[in-house]
Amino acid sequence: MIDQAIKHARTNGQQYLSDLFELLRIPSISTLPGNKKDVLKAANWLTSHMESIGLENVQLVKTPSNPIVYGDWLHAKGKPTVLIYGHYDVQPADPLDEWKSPPFEPTIRGNRLYGRGTSDNKCQHFIFLSAVASYLKTQKRLPVNIKFAIEGAEETGSDYFDSALTKNKQLFSHDVSIIADLGMAGKDKPAIFYGLRGILFTEVTVQGPAKDLHSGVYGGVVDNPANVLTRILGKLQDRSGKVAIPNFYNNVASISEEEKRLLRQSARNAAELKQLTGAKELIKLLGSELFLQRKTLPTLDINGIYSGFTGEGSKTIIPSTASAKISMRLVPNQDPDEVFIAYKNFIRKHTPHTVSINVVKLASEPALISDFKGPEISSAKKAMEKVFSGKTVLNRSGASIPAAAHLAKVYKKPLIMTGFSLLDSNIHSPNENFYLPNFAKGIEAAIHMFSNLA
Amino acid sequence: MIDQAIKHARTNGQQYLSDLFELLRIPSISTLPGNKKDVLKAANWLTSHMESIGLENVQLVKTPSNPIVYGDWLHAKGKPTVLIYGHYDVQPADPLDEWKSPPFEPTIRGNRLYGRGTSDNKCQHFIFLSAVASYLKTQKRLPVNIKFAIEGAEETGSDYFDSALTKNKQLFSHDVSIIADLGMAGKDKPAIFYGLRGILFTEVTVQGPAKDLHSGVYGGVVDNPANVLTRILGKLQDRSGKVAIPNFYNNVASISEEEKRLLRQSARNAAELKQLTGAKELIKLLGSELFLQRKTLPTLDINGIYSGFTGEGSKTIIPSTASAKISMRLVPNQDPDEVFIAYKNFIRKHTPHTVSINVVKLASEPALISDFKGPEISSAKKAMEKVFSGKTVLNRSGASIPAAAHLAKVYKKPLIMTGFSLLDSNIHSPNENFYLPNFAKGIEAAIHMFSNLA
Repeated sequence: MIDQAIKHARTNGQQYLSDLFELLRIPSISTLPGNKKDVLKAANWLTSHMESIGLENVQLVKTPSNPIVYGDWLHAKGKPTVLIYGHYDVQPADPLDEWKSPPFEPTIRGNRLYGRGTSDNKCQHFIFLSAVASYLKTQKRLPVNIKFAIEGAEETGSDYFDSALTKNKQLFSHDVSIIADLGMAGKDKPAIFYGLRGILFTEVTVQGPAKDLHSGVYGGVVDNPANVLTRILGKLQDRSGKVAIPNFYNNVASISEEEKRLLRQSARNAAELKQLTGAKELIKLLGSELFLQRKTLPTLDINGIYSGFTGEGSKTIIPSTASAKISMRLVPNQDPDEVFIAYKNFIRKHTPHTVSINVVKLASEPALISDFKGPEISSAKKAMEKVFSGKTVLNRSGASIPAAAHLAKVYKKPLIMTGFSLLDSNIHSPNENFYLPNFAKGIEAAIHMFSNLA
Repeated sequence: MIDQAIKHARTNGQQYLSDLFELLRIPSISTLPGNKKDVLKAANWLTSHMESIGLENVQLVKTPSNPIVYGDWLHAKGKPTVLIYGHYDVQPADPLDEWKSPPFEPTIRGNRLYGRGTSDNKCQHFIFLSAVASYLKTQKRLPVNIKFAIEGAEETGSDYFDSALTKNKQLFSHDVSIIADLGMAGKDKPAIFYGLRGILFTEVTVQGPAKDLHSGVYGGVVDNPANVLTRILGKLQDRSGKVAIPNFYNNVASISEEEKRLLRQSARNAAELKQLTGAKELIKLLGSELFLQRKTLPTLDINGIYSGFTGEGSKTIIPSTASAKISMRLVPNQDPDEVFIAYKNFIRKHTPHTVSINVVKLASEPALISDFKGPEISSAKKAMEKVFSGKTVLNRSGASIPAAAHLAKVYKKPLIMTGFSLLDSNIHSPNENFYLPNFAKGIEAAIHMFSNLA
């Protein structure tokens, strides 16, 4: 049955792509309240699409945030149930002027498909939907039972995905899940991830005078919230990037020599990373080997900072307030709540009595680590290698997928964390793209994966 | 002759005010390139107005920045020539949503006239223009020779005012200048200033990766420009606000006991300053007395800082760049160029090799200090006390007026630095205003001042 599905996928690639374009045109930015309607439009588009390809019980599972799009096909008696996770929400597109084509007008240049949400994550779950379609259109059946859970709040930290799983535990129950939100090690080099970093996302606001003040008239007596904020944030790290919060590294799990050898296989060297990012030099953190720094060590990054007059020209004020959005990537076995308390205490300790400060936790999720020697990962690996010529890399990711952590916590079932984006797919950046040849190859790999998991 | 002028001023107050409204409606924001036309519109409005009140030789003195509006009346043979300085350009109006009425629609609420540019500086030079008008309309003559130099680039640091004076040295020559850009010590308490702080206005930009990066994928290996910028800026000051740049305080002039006694007379206490500004607590700087902190000590203020994602919601990136606008208020005898070099070296020293940095000087002017016992200041003081019931305060200002420093440097003539704004006039802030009763009183004081200087 697999041959017919593959043949169908090859013949219908163009149709799948043109369907995908409809989804990519919807600016389903979940982090911007103004795009709420578009987010719901994307959810509704997906339900129609799921129904059109033959999925059943298609529904929007409500959450206090955006709904989860659910659809299933459960007629493979005695076979395992595979839950496929993805998300239809996307990151904001700014800075807009750095895009070479409009972010919500999917555009092919060379062998890349450009658009916000291509790699993160619309192409990715669409590949699995298209694999299902290829089976159902040709044989009206699948080798395994399938459930889709495509959420709409991944970019806001998967708010309420946790509680949606708990409330609908039976609906989403499964034997193995495929987290289709990661990337490949290279264009022809698949990757399966068994570990993710966690995240702690915060916002800090310093409140100074009641209004912006003239810095000549009041400079020297009224403290400046922007000065205070930089003084505090500047203390969070030393020059090497080492986080200065007390006990921050205490619970960081060590890594076995076996795992180190495994991870070293997929290590990118400094020259590659510099070329990919345009960074002048890389950080050398805690005497660690470079390839471990972004997989097994926690970080602290200011994602945004804002205060006072930032337009062209000059305005000599003491700003009334100063704010920053700061996230930490966490590793096993850091506890997000413990880290947040230590972080908040550190900030309060360094806050002078001249200002007020507010430290808020906006989202958090612990890191996830699972067995890289499990049979499901082995099945997925083989499926990948039927399609791609490169050997599959088993890896940890530095990114965070709260939904994966939630699934692990609620169901305690194996997870296959994989995907088809590339390191230069510019996710979360201008000119996000998907390497087009891997759209077709991805569908074939997914067809094999369903077959191998049966 | 003074009585007729005063009578005319009292009768025509409403007409002067309605003329002034026309000027206030022009959004002549010199720091925003998009408002260039409005800046020129304000200049042209002033030339027409000067001609209409009987000033002669009215002209726009070109500079590479905005023109200086010049007009004179030079028929008081044997009498001194008084140059009146003001500026028709204004600060940006943002944050717009904090204004209770539109910034460029002058609005009277209670006894205040609200609008951007009311106190800083349109009402102020308009008072002197109206004093001239009151003399010329009633007697076709003035007790002294008068020149006006109303510039259009004060808020950008008086670019090219210096070179315009040098190029047109004869045109602007005078015996005494009145810098009509300062404020009163209270509603009925005039002030004349004999010292100003200087300014050094800079911009710092940290360049990290070539584009915004996913902070999960690259966090821990690619340094974050916002982290770097806060680390650097956080080192510029200690917790007390003391500037950490080496030798920063070396040349700061000490202050005599006589001057200290003078300045102590106009000192505002901490409770007053907290009430005016809404600050939680004030800075205690270098063990200085509070009233000296903003008059005789230098400062360093971040006027604006910007990096990464600052919208509502979240976006977990390593930003590509981070920038800040930083100004220092300087005091006698700090040299702006020397301070800039020390500042730049300090920043470079604390910049890691993972990023590039750019430190630019946007404007600078040394502090100004003159003799508070001169006869011109005494004449102006007496004029003020004919109209206002309070005793005139002789004072230093914490603000910077580059044009005053330029006049002092080029002409070496006495300066009377005064004005009629109040400490709660919100200059450079939302809801800028002018205390209306002092519009009429200011015109009368100016009429007396011309007479006393004859």
